[in-house]
This record gives sequence, structure tokens and C-alpha cells, in this order.
Amino acid sequence: MKAVIYNGPRDVRVATIDDPRIEKPTDALVRLTTTNICGSDLHMYEGRTSFAKGRVFGHENLGEVIEVGPGVDRVKKGDMVVMPFNVACGFCENCEKGLTGFCLTCNPGSAGAAYGFADMGPYQGGQAEFLRVPYADFNCLVLPEDAGEKEEDYVMLSDILPTGWHAVELSGLEPGESVAIYGAGPVGLMAAQSALIKGAAEVLVVDEHDDRLELAETLGAVAIDKRKGDPVQQILDRTDGRGTDRGCECVGYQCCDRHGREASNYTMNCLVGSTKATGGIGVVGVFIPKDPGAPDKLQQEGKLAFDFGSFWFKGQTIKTGQCNVKAYNRRLANLIQTGRLSPSRIISHRLKLDQAPDAYKHFDARDQGWTKVVLKPAA
Amino acid sequence: MKAVIYNGPRDVRVATIDDPRIEKPTDALVRLTTTNICGSDLHMYEGRTSFAKGRVFGHENLGEVIEVGPGVDRVKKGDMVVMPFNVACGFCENCEKGLTGFCLTCNPGSAGAAYGFADMGPYQGGQAEFLRVPYADFNCLVLPEDAGEKEEDYVMLSDILPTGWHAVELSGLEPGESVAIYGAGPVGLMAAQSALIKGAAEVLVVDEHDDRLELAETLGAVAIDKRKGDPVQQILDRTDGRGTDRGCECVGYQCCDRHGREASNYTMNCLVGSTKATGGIGVVGVFIPKDPGAPDKLQQEGKLAFDFGSFWFKGQTIKTGQCNVKAYNRRLANLIQTGRLSPSRIISHRLKLDQAPDAYKHFDARDQGWTKVVLKPAA
Amino acid sequence: MKAVIYNGPRDVRVATIDDPRIEKPTDALVRLTTTNICGSDLHMYEGRTSFAKGRVFGHENLGEVIEVGPGVDRVKKGDMVVMPFNVACGFCENCEKGLTGFCLTCNPGSAGAAYGFADMGPYQGGQAEFLRVPYADFNCLVLPEDAGEKEEDYVMLSDILPTGWHAVELSGLEPGESVAIYGAGPVGLMAAQSALIKGAAEVLVVDEHDDRLELAETLGAVAIDKRKGDPVQQILDRTDGRGTDRGCECVGYQCCDRHGREASNYTMNCLVGSTKATGGIGVVGVFIPKDPGAPDKLQQEGKLAFDFGSFWFKGQTIKTGQCNVKAYNRRLANLIQTGRLSPSRIISHRLKLDQAPDAYKHFDARDQGWTKVVLKPAA
Amino acid sequence: MKAVIYNGPRDVRVATIDDPRIEKPTDALVRLTTTNICGSDLHMYEGRTSFAKGRVFGHENLGEVIEVGPGVDRVKKGDMVVMPFNVACGFCENCEKGLTGFCLTCNPGSAGAAYGFADMGPYQGGQAEFLRVPYADFNCLVLPEDAGEKEEDYVMLSDILPTGWHAVELSGLEPGESVAIYGAGPVGLMAAQSALIKGAAEVLVVDEHDDRLELAETLGAVAIDKRKGDPVQQILDRTDGRGTDRGCECVGYQCCDRHGREASNYTMNCLVGSTKATGGIGVVGVFIPKDPGAPDKLQQEGKLAFDFGSFWFKGQTIKTGQCNVKAYNRRLANLIQTGRLSPSRIISHRLKLDQAPDAYKHFDARDQGWTKVVLKPAA
Repeated sequence: MKAVIYNGPRDVRVATIDDPRIEKPTDALVRLTTTNICGSDLHMYEGRTSFAKGRVFGHENLGEVIEVGPGVDRVKKGDMVVMPFNVACGFCENCEKGLTGFCLTCNPGSAGAAYGFADMGPYQGGQAEFLRVPYADFNCLVLPEDAGEKEEDYVMLSDILPTGWHAVELSGLEPGESVAIYGAGPVGLMAAQSALIKGAAEVLVVDEHDDRLELAETLGAVAIDKRKGDPVQQILDRTDGRGTDRGCECVGYQCCDRHGREASNYTMNCLVGSTKATGGIGVVGVFIPKDPGAPDKLQQEGKLAFDFGSFWFKGQTIKTGQCNVKAYNRRLANLIQTGRLSPSRIISHRLKLDQAPDAYKHFDARDQGWTKVVLKPAA
Repeated sequence: MKAVIYNGPRDVRVATIDDPRIEKPTDALVRLTTTNICGSDLHMYEGRTSFAKGRVFGHENLGEVIEVGPGVDRVKKGDMVVMPFNVACGFCENCEKGLTGFCLTCNPGSAGAAYGFADMGPYQGGQAEFLRVPYADFNCLVLPEDAGEKEEDYVMLSDILPTGWHAVELSGLEPGESVAIYGAGPVGLMAAQSALIKGAAEVLVVDEHDDRLELAETLGAVAIDKRKGDPVQQILDRTDGRGTDRGCECVGYQCCDRHGREASNYTMNCLVGSTKATGGIGVVGVFIPKDPGAPDKLQQEGKLAFDFGSFWFKGQTIKTGQCNVKAYNRRLANLIQTGRLSPSRIISHRLKLDQAPDAYKHFDARDQGWTKVVLKPAA
Repeated sequence: MKAVIYNGPRDVRVATIDDPRIEKPTDALVRLTTTNICGSDLHMYEGRTSFAKGRVFGHENLGEVIEVGPGVDRVKKGDMVVMPFNVACGFCENCEKGLTGFCLTCNPGSAGAAYGFADMGPYQGGQAEFLRVPYADFNCLVLPEDAGEKEEDYVMLSDILPTGWHAVELSGLEPGESVAIYGAGPVGLMAAQSALIKGAAEVLVVDEHDDRLELAETLGAVAIDKRKGDPVQQILDRTDGRGTDRGCECVGYQCCDRHGREASNYTMNCLVGSTKATGGIGVVGVFIPKDPGAPDKLQQEGKLAFDFGSFWFKGQTIKTGQCNVKAYNRRLANLIQTGRLSPSRIISHRLKLDQAPDAYKHFDARDQGWTKVVLKPAA
Repeated sequence: MKAVIYNGPRDVRVATIDDPRIEKPTDALVRLTTTNICGSDLHMYEGRTSFAKGRVFGHENLGEVIEVGPGVDRVKKGDMVVMPFNVACGFCENCEKGLTGFCLTCNPGSAGAAYGFADMGPYQGGQAEFLRVPYADFNCLVLPEDAGEKEEDYVMLSDILPTGWHAVELSGLEPGESVAIYGAGPVGLMAAQSALIKGAAEVLVVDEHDDRLELAETLGAVAIDKRKGDPVQQILDRTDGRGTDRGCECVGYQCCDRHGREASNYTMNCLVGSTKATGGIGVVGVFIPKDPGAPDKLQQEGKLAFDFGSFWFKGQTIKTGQCNVKAYNRRLANLIQTGRLSPSRIISHRLKLDQAPDAYKHFDARDQGWTKVVLKPAA
């Protein structure tokens, strides 16, 4: 089959590799029809990880089931399914509590597995024609009849929509409260949409790119342009000096300060400052335990110079971590089905698999207008 | 001052009575500018309660503070305020947990007090020119600058909006779930609006009046017309036989079956039938411990012939009771202020205090189009 | 193999039947070493259900894994395991939320399956030498090294300990609160022990049998003897007229009033009376949708003449249903392992499989001292 | 009256000052019978704060009401009462949610007030004969009849018992889980006792003082002696490399590493290391926004070099802040009354007010055996 493989830093290729096959009785095979490029693919693309040459990218996958193993009971050949980016077993201590992002089975020695991801187990990615899905009854969300028509909405259930939702959930937002979201990339935009669906009274989105801030406003949020002044002060000014009730980190360790300098503690310290006393902060932007290539010594050790004194004094809360997609995907699918959520609104490009190398280049360069790329392996 | 007083069954009058005054250091006096007639006023109006002749009606009150006692610290003369229908102390075991609908101080021997209400303490109602507010710092919600402009929205914070919200909260609704609301009166309509703000995927509203069902649809809900067939079956049909995730009772003990016969167990047994296994049911419609005038012996004793076997077998949950308005009013005010909620949409009549007797007559008769009446004592 | 089978009303036999075998790749086979007789077995024993002649009893099962299917990854031959009484798939909408007592897969058309139980799917019971366990990775709790030594504690994780715990959980008990438990059978006693572990300030247990009330006191509870007067009044007297914070129903539809007459609404109406306003009630005693053999018409239809008016007026909550054993069994196992819980304290008899018919007779007659019977199929 | 006043760094005196009086209608006056010295008094004693010369110390206060203002309704002359260390209004946005440690009224411009505390409002402390209590109906917990007999237990409700409880609550501990508590001072010991009452399967307490570790073991915890090796490794070894489910920080910014060197990030980074992936961390040890006298530049700015990368990667949660005493004191009083909690077990010294200067000296020096000092102003 054809697949998008890693060939070294900033080098991906479309190659022909062996088709996947049913390896265990609980596996299914899926013929992919839509699969996205995600911002987190860029970490591997840029060569800052242990991702091996020849591995297939892609953890945002949707398609049709073409074969199931003899231990698969629920999922049937012909079902249209979308898979969480997490690979999870369904029966370990974490999965049984719904913490499928921290499965103890699928990536032994660690907690949490994913398709086509560095350090997240041996699973191939889905930027390809076919995908093997382990524990298929647990990992496939079978889609309703409008799956064809709304495929580009449903595919967002694999990662960015639930991840944005998770940010808001971790922040503890209650209806009628306000929330500040740092980062207007795909996940931040999904967080903004999620906060509104969850009844936020006001959603502030902090970023420095015009196209993204405009998109945030289109979705119903208020844009806070970092280039126009300290975002903390802007937020305090809008809230009578009190700060927002909640805050979300949707950028991660490569965040930059107002002057464009990478400063891994920038968003977190802003969040402590712009969130009210007793408020909650949800962090889905990726932070990593070690970053040997970083300029700063603290950062190399995965440490932040964090405003812990203010954080404690204000009695705030931080919740973190990868999204447990299965905790939300079924209910979010309902909202897509009844028309209340349309995450496909942020898609900027629909491309063939062969166009992936070019798309990676533009997306990595953050070229204006390259918001979200969707690949069509079956096209 | 002028006030709407009870003069016997189906007889209210506008009379001149003594002005209220500061009785305790923690009191405030409010000059009322908007005060509503509530469906629950009709119980007293119809003479089925112990409400005494000469008492003033009215528990949905908004106005301007004109005087505060020496123990009042926060509320100031000139503040525009809306009061929860519950009178609460703020320091008893229930109030300190936020259960202000069950205050143990304000109506000794019972749990819960209200303005102008039978068996809910000695407090006068607010369908008058002035109102004494006990524990004013606790019971007044001070409104923001747009209070004048949005007075008819904010007044709904006194009862029906938070009561409708409470119904949904008690049902346990999570975003992306479905909910069936029995009753499209003012509270049921507010429940529908609340469910949508809270992220419901689908809201079904059951009623038998055309104008109310239309209003429900205008707000974004699906109308289930009881006259067209068993509402349980209609709901099961819409949900692949599974039932809704959640259900709300917004009618109370005088509910009627499909043939218009009063049957106090009708809505509750419908809810057990139309809610899925493991689902939750929130009950804000009023049920009473004794109803001596009822035709049915069980009902006289405050009992229902309730489908407890099915309820248990389905592993459902019921949560009940009067709304603790203060649990929600501040956050709902935010939603009004940022324009996400407009509860005044259901107002049908804006009248002077002198027009109250006539309004009671029409509202009690459920005359077509008399959805919600707002009185303007200062007009 | 030898197994305890149903042979008609009040007639069980030990018969030789075919050994179970691996039927699906996700199955495991367990050689049983301890298996209990449960109070709910008596419903079937008494012939009031559709339980078929020849079926094997037993849903409280512990033993050693002797074989696993090719789709089983975690559970290994030789593991000592205890199974929840619920048979669950792990991947349906309910299981993925932890509602394993309402699995939508294992008993199609209903919600919830069990071993050896009427109307709960085709699964054989474990009062036998061997048991087939479906979805073994999900349904087996692998026990720690002290499994042999504490086998009689761990076997209680199959049903009565988590079910008692569930009663308390459903009641909403917070540490420092009081709780009244109706019924001092095995489940009620486990509920009492659970409430104490969860930090109850005071646990009141209502019953009418001396041996059970004594056992309750031994565990640290206060005995309320129904024979000495109305239990509601006794509880109100102990709590300054206020009632307990929480209440648990651990009897079910065959409950009896103070005079020993079966009255299916007795415990529930007592609970409404003896629980404070705003309090919570957890119901794990079994109530059934239809009971054709009942003397009372309401009861035949599965209805209770329930004090709904008082229930609503007091703003109480009822949560119900079969226990989702997997929600608790792992954490309860920790408490057994560290010695904080010893549920085996209530065992009265340890018998061989051949002695089962006699044990059923005594247990059904509620003969003094027959509290809890444990069978040893491997002995 | 006589009172313990601050006279400069490491200098407290017992002086005669004016008696407090009712200043507002909602005040009460209390004659103190027991008042404790708290570890946090030492910050001010050591002169590292803005605490003014001549101010009275003491925020752990219990006594008898001798006068109430005309706006006080519930509390009566003669009542025995214990006051939370927080001074709170009961009606601000935070108080109405139960966040009384962050009252927006009592210390304008900040969130949270206390008796006799730097930067926490103008309130005098209670190491004196009398105390003025603002908003007395809200701030006094009226004690039951055994108040005299158990006075030394009930006084712990003012701070250290609820603060220890809060640590455990913030950690998210569920019954059957394990928790590591860093610090075996009075608060850490109360956290250990709290965790056991809340059903912890295992409680590990990390410290380096023999007397405190012994006391922890007496209370039922496992002692982890920091002097014997890296506590993180010791905890991982005890938990099969997995870490505890939860962790509590009960030391604060002056914590020391294994070699006795002050290192403000030591306990927090240990907690990230010794808590499992997805685990929760509760922080009640005090951290401060600025600490100009600190040796380290980061610490001067209130920053920690915090292992944020590992924290995020493990998907952990941190909750922080001063205890909202009223959230727990009533339920904890029940546990004292029914004999399940005896916090007075850790008292080492019972002294007269005149002996306070000497007690401060010993307690500040952490002299062996000076665990908890109780003063008796009325003796």
C-alpha cells in the first residue's frame, strides 16, 4: 500500500510498503478515507524525536472496516469508524477508569500509546491506505448513517476536537464562567468552540497570528492579540482586574513570549497571572520530561521557572495531560450528528496522499492559511 | 404602599397597606420595578393552601435598594438588585453548603423560606411598591450596569430561569446528551433553554398546548405533542428504543394524563419509561406531602403509584426539590450580560400593579397567549 | 464436572454435567476454589423466576485460571482471579463509562448480564468445578500474592462487598455524616462496614434479627431493632428530630413491615421519613418491574405507593441499581490486602459442593446462624 | 486584657492591651479558653513578614461567647465556639461557593483573611483573653455538649485538622488508594489521620525527625525516613515502581533536601516523581509570591524550577491553597463527637499565656518533643 513515511528531519515520502494484516484475534483492518496532519506530527517531522526512519505518520484516522479478527464482536465489516489517536486496551487499571490516554497495556513500561508516534508504542500511523486497529471493539467508534456526509467533521473526533474539549474540561469550566485560551492553533480553536458549547459566558483567545485570531472571532470568541501588549494585562483589564475564571494552555513547551522568543514558561506563567484566585488551568499543550536540544538549561531538564508562589497563593488548580479521547468522542459525535458542532470549519486544505510531502513543508513553516490539512488516501 | 393581596379563593385585590421598614440590622428595603406572577402563585390564588387573607403575593422580584440596615456591608443604596425567591440566612448548615432552598433559619421547624408563599415563613411578597429583604448581603444579587436595559431578563433570575436550570442540573445532563422535558410552561421552557446552553445534543419538550410547543421549537427544542400519542412511545421511537439520557419533570402533582385527567403519577411514570437505563431524572415540578382535596386516596396522602420496579431495574436516579437559586444566579447573570441568554423572550404581558387582578384571572384560566406576566409597580 | 443445578422450586441437586470450554478467543476457563451462595439465589431457588431447570447457580466466584483463549492478553494460566457477578464486555457505551452492571452487549435487548441468573443472559453459574469467563481480560480481577491466604475475603469482591459499598456510594455519604442502613443481611452488613471505611460519623443498622443486629454492632454500627418500635421514630429521636444525612435500602421488594407483613413500600417510605431534608438514599435491594405472584395489585405491576410528596418536599435524592462491581473491586482489594477490610468475618459456613442442597434449605429458611455460606468445589 | 504580641524578630511578649469590643452589629466577643501556636506563626515570629510590632498572634481559637451584636441571630451568649482561622463574610462570590479561604470582602484587594496574620487583614489574633469575631453567625462553629470535655480536640478544627484534611481532599484520594504525605509536622500528621479516616489503603509519611515519624506510625501510617535514602526511590520500591495514587505537600517553601539544604522545589519535584501517572497532588504547605530574603534568585521571585515536563507527561493534577475551614469543620466535629477522630493526640504542651514567649523559642528551634503547643488564656 501507499503510506507517508519518515525519511529523516524535514523529509517525508510517500512509499509503497506491505499492507497491514490481522495479527491478533481482537484486531480490525480499516481502509482509510480521511486522515489529518496534526501539529504534533511536526515534532517528529522536525527530527527532534526518536521516531525511526521508515515509520508511517498519522494518528487522526477515519475509514471503513474491511476485516475483523475472530475475537471482534461489535465492529463489523463495512462499518464507518473513527479511531481515537490513543491505542488502548480497555481492561487495564487506567482504561477501566476511562483514562485511555494512559493505557498501561499498549506501551509497556510507559502509560499511553498512539498510532505513528514517537515513544508511544510500535503502532503504524494512518497516513496510508490501510490501518491495523488493535482491540478494535474498544478503539473504534462506529459512526451513524450520516458518516459519509459529515466525514470531515467526524474525523476531528480522533484528536483535535476532544483534545480541545479536554483542555476546557481540565480547566473546570462551569456554564456562565469566562475562560482564556492561550493558542489559536487547531486545538485552541477547538477549545474555544468547546467552551461555547459548554456554556461559557465569555471566551478569550490569545495568539499573534491574524488568520487564527480572525477564525477565533468567527467561532464566537474574543481575540486577544499578544502583539498589542501583555496578554495578562489585557485580560485583567477586560475583567475588572479579577482575571478569568478558567484558563487553557494549548501551545506547549515551544511557546514564545511577546517578542517571539521561545520561552517554555511563558504561557504557564501568563495563565497564573490572568486566572482569578481559586481558578482552574487545563494544560493540553505538550511539555516533555527532557529536551536535550533546548537552548536553556532548565528546559533541557524539562523544568520550568514556574510562578509557583503566586499559583499557590491564589489557590489555583492545574490539570494536565493527553486527552482520553474515548471519554468524549461518543457525546461529541452526537453534537456533530444533531448539527450543533461543525469542527470541519477550520479545514484549510483537502489533499491526496501524494501531496503530503508538500503539505508538511507548508504546515511546518506555518505558512499563512495552512490551518488544518486533511488527506484523502482513497481519492 | 400599594400591594397585590389575597382576599380569598380566586380573589386578589390591589390594596393600600403599611410600607415595610428595616426591622433588623441586616435588612434592606427595595423599591420594586419589575415583579412577576408565577405559576405557583396560582396554588394560593385558587385557595388550596393556608395562605392568609391580606398577605401580599410575589416572589419574583427586582428593584432598587432604597435603604440598608447598619449590619449590611456590601449592598448599597441605589444598587439594582434581584432577589432569589428563597429567603435564606447564609450561615446555617444547609446555606453553607449552597442549599439555600432549604435554609434552616428563616422558616423554623421546616427547611426553606420564600417571599409571599404559603408555609414558607412570614415574609411578605413583592407584588407591591416596596419589599423588605432579610439578610440583604446574602439575598441580593447586585446587577451590572446594563440592569436597566435588561431588567426583564434579569428578573427571571429570581425563580423560573434558575428553577429550569436546576431541573436540568438535577437530571445530570452532560454535554452531548439528550433530554426530555415534561411541561412547556415557563419553567419547562427555561429548562429547555438551559439544556441547550449546557450543551445538550437534543432537547425534547412534551406538552399539549400549541402556543407552548411552538415557543419550545423557537427556542431550539423538538416538540412532542402528547395529544398525538403516548409521549413515551414517541420518545422511544425517536431514540431507537433506547430513551433519552436524561429527563425533567416541570409540571408537578396536578399533572394530567393524555386524556386530560389529573393523574399525579403520570409524568413520573412517563419519565421512568422514556429515560434510558442508568439515566437521570430531575424533578422541580411541585409535589406535596398532603393534598386533602384530591379525588384519589393515594394522592390525598401525598403518595404516587410509582413504577419503582422499573425505576430500580433500569438503575435510574431521581433528584428533586426547590431550586437553590443562589447556586446559579450569578453565573446565569453573566450569560445574560454577555447576551447568550434572553429569558425575557417568553414574556407575554407587561402590566401595571392595578392590572394584577385581571392578569391573575387570565393566567389561572390558562387563556391562550398568557405565558408570562410581568408587573411594573413603579410605572 | 460436578455442579449445583436447579431442579424446580426449592429443589437443587449436585449433578454431573459437561465441562465448559473456551468458546470464543476472549474466553478464559477458571477452576473454582471458593463460590458463595447469595441471598439473590433464593429468588430462583423459590421458583418465582424464569430460571430453567438444569441451569447452574452461582455468581460469587473465585478460582484459578486453567486456560485462556488466543485473544486473551493479560490474564494468564495459573492466575488466581475473582470475577464480578456482572458479565460485561468492556466496550459498549455503558461499560466504557464504568456502568458494567448495565452492559449492553452481554444480554442483548436488556442492560446487564450475570452468571447463573434469571433474565441476565445465558451464562452458567460457578457453583461448580469450572467456569467459563467471557471477555476474560475485562472480567477477571487478578489477585495479589496473598490470594491463597485471604481467599475468603477476596471472594466477597464478587458481589456482596461491592454491592454494600455501592449502596453507600449511591447514598452520597460524605465523611463525617450519618447513615441509616435498612437490612442487616450480608449486603447490609457490608454496607455498614463500607460506611465506616468511608468515614461515616455514625452508622445505624435497622433489622429485626438478633444475630444480625449483634453482628452489626460488632462491626461498629448502632443497632436499631425494628421490633422495639417504629424505626423512623427511633432514628429521629437519635438525631434531634433531623434524620440521618444518608440512607441505604439493602432489603428489596420482599421487605416486611414491623409486624412481619410483606409490604414492598415499607423500607422506601421509612427511608424518606428517617433521612433529612436534602439527604440521599441509595437502593441496592432488588425491586422488580412485574411480580405476578404478589398479593397486592400495585406490587404485581411493580409499583410502590411511594411517599413522593414528602420525598420532593424534602428535596431528597434516590439513586438505584445493580452494582457495577468493577467500579470498586480493585480498590476494595487493596483494602483487603493492607488489612483494613475483612469481609470474611460474616461467613457462618464453609461447605463442600455436595452439601449445597442442604445449605440452600437452611439459608432459605433463614435458620438462625446461617449468615453466609461459602462452598469449596475443589475440596 | 493580656495578649501575646509581636515585638520584633524572635521577640514576643505578653502585654496588657485594650479589650476588644463589638464594632459592628454582626460581631461577637469570645473569651478564649484554648488557643494554639501554629507553625505558620513562626514565619511572622522570625521577622520575615510585614507583621507589625504590637499586633496580637493567634489564629487557632476556641472559647465562650460573652457578647453578640444586634445583627447576630444564631450564636448566643454562653455558646462554646471554635473559629476557622479564616475570617470570611459568607456572602461574596467565593464564600457563597464555600471558598471561605478566599473571601473577597474581609481583606479588600486580596482574597482571604485571617486572625493575627501578616497580609491577611487587620484582625487581631486570639493568643489573648478575648477575641472579636466578625460576621459571627458565619464564623463561629457552635460546639455540642461535650465541648468542655473535648476542648483540645475541637480546637484543632480551627486550622490544622481541616488543613490536613484539605491536603488529602486536594489530592483527590479515593478510598482504597495510597497516598504519600511529605512532612510530619502537625499538619502532615493531621493529613495522615485524615487519609485513614477517608479510607486510604496505605499512607506513607516522609520526614526526617524520629519523634514525628514515630508519631506517624502510631497513627497508622508507614514512615519513610528521608535520611535513609531518596524518598522517591523508597516510595517507588514499595509500590512496584508505580508510585502512590496521591501525594500531599505539607511543608512549604522552606523545605529542605535530603542533605538539609533549603530547596524550595524539593518536595514538589519529589511529589511528581513519587506519584503515579494520572495521580493527584494536594499542596497546603505555604508558598509565597515573593521572598526577598531567599538565597536563590528564582526563589526570591517566588518561582520554582519545577519538573513540569514530567508532571505533564504523567498527566498529573495539582490543587493548592489555604484551607476553606468551613467546608469541613462541621463534619469533622461530628467525627470528634462520635469518637472516631482524636486530633489532640499530637499535643505536646499545655501552657499558660505567660509561658508563650518561652514556648515560641522552643517551637521555633524545633526542639525535640515540642510537637504542638496549646495555650490556656483562662487558666
